[in-house]
Amino acid sequence: MDFPHYFPIWNKLSGDAQNRLLGSLIPKKVKKGTIIHNGSTDCTGLLLVKSGQLRAYILSEEGREITIYRLFDRDMCLFSASCMIHSIQFEVTIEAQKDTDLWVIPADIYQGIMVQSAPVANYTNELMATRFSDVMWLVEQIMWKSLDKRVAAFLLEEASIEGTDELKITHEIIANHLGSHREVITRMLRYFQKEGMVRLSRGTVTLLERTGLEQIRDA
Amino acid sequence: MDFPHYFPIWNKLSGDAQNRLLGSLIPKKVKKGTIIHNGSTDCTGLLLVKSGQLRAYILSEEGREITIYRLFDRDMCLFSASCMIHSIQFEVTIEAQKDTDLWVIPADIYQGIMVQSAPVANYTNELMATRFSDVMWLVEQIMWKSLDKRVAAFLLEEASIEGTDELKITHEIIANHLGSHREVITRMLRYFQKEGMVRLSRGTVTLLERTGLEQIRDA
Repeated sequence: MDFPHYFPIWNKLSGDAQNRLLGSLIPKKVKKGTIIHNGSTDCTGLLLVKSGQLRAYILSEEGREITIYRLFDRDMCLFSASCMIHSIQFEVTIEAQKDTDLWVIPADIYQGIMVQSAPVANYTNELMATRFSDVMWLVEQIMWKSLDKRVAAFLLEEASIEGTDELKITHEIIANHLGSHREVITRMLRYFQKEGMVRLSRGTVTLLERTGLEQIRDA
Repeated sequence: MDFPHYFPIWNKLSGDAQNRLLGSLIPKKVKKGTIIHNGSTDCTGLLLVKSGQLRAYILSEEGREITIYRLFDRDMCLFSASCMIHSIQFEVTIEAQKDTDLWVIPADIYQGIMVQSAPVANYTNELMATRFSDVMWLVEQIMWKSLDKRVAAFLLEEASIEGTDELKITHEIIANHLGSHREVITRMLRYFQKEGMVRLSRGTVTLLERTGLEQIRDA
């Protein structure tokens, strides 16, 4: 069990709290595409990613999606345990974007520790502030940035996450990340293609000219 | 000094922490329109509203505004002390919307207490979660709701806050709350007026038919 190496404030926990955590952990392996947490209907628990990639998004009544943050190795997800903090009045859905190894920490166990431990409560605060900053960045993007900038930024970010310029991703998925429509994204990508910045083929977007995309993003 | 009555977890503080807080408080009276906190350039401290009304907003590079939350009597503002929590990576501006009586709690004093006190850290967590929920509501509004619904919702909210249907507010101010442009708001309000739901006059929007506005908001 290498959980302690993944939990940043392990050494600040009491021995009793360490035992309660270890005794309640649920290790999970989920396939790409699995919905791990679904709104506030369940209180899944906190998710600590060992390896893989998760996406948190919100859904409109019409089924449109927008990604609010993504989680990578060693990241922890708080909002899958929103029952733990009364003032959290919103629902997120968490989906595995890659095959993912993770631990589920039951919400009641974590809460029991957090209520008594200043280090755990302060760590939780930092965690929430990180996600809050992600969402504030998102608000700035959707309020002040035009869609061409957002698509360029997304492609560059994705290439950096994947470590390749050949992205296996559909226009639909890009639309769901950005809260847009597939048709709108297709039109934008075709424009990028016409300008020689990307090449489109079935299920793939290949970045040909990063500088051009960076210029659009930073304009 | 009636600060203890306004600070919800006063009784959970140690005597020492209580003394440190009381000894460092800065009572302030600010006029409507005063900018109390300006981005991350200063770390003003936490603001506890005794009476009055504050508005937190973000600014685009072009100077456009959008309100992210409002604070009323007994509300506390955390993000005017963002230096206190490392992971807060965004900047808000805080403006008095009415003449306001408040206390400034210096960030270093509050942080010193929070680091050691589980109740204070957990309270801070709830506070952040409340604002986070406000901002998630905002994301849903700007992503999924058309502007007519947002203007109708804003007018109804404002009437409820002010306790009157005769709102002393300019089109520019409504635009700044909603992250829109004055011209766009004027067009929308004229449409509402044509439908008999509001009456417009210089610096005033009078709600004539709440039911109509509610129908638009809830459609």
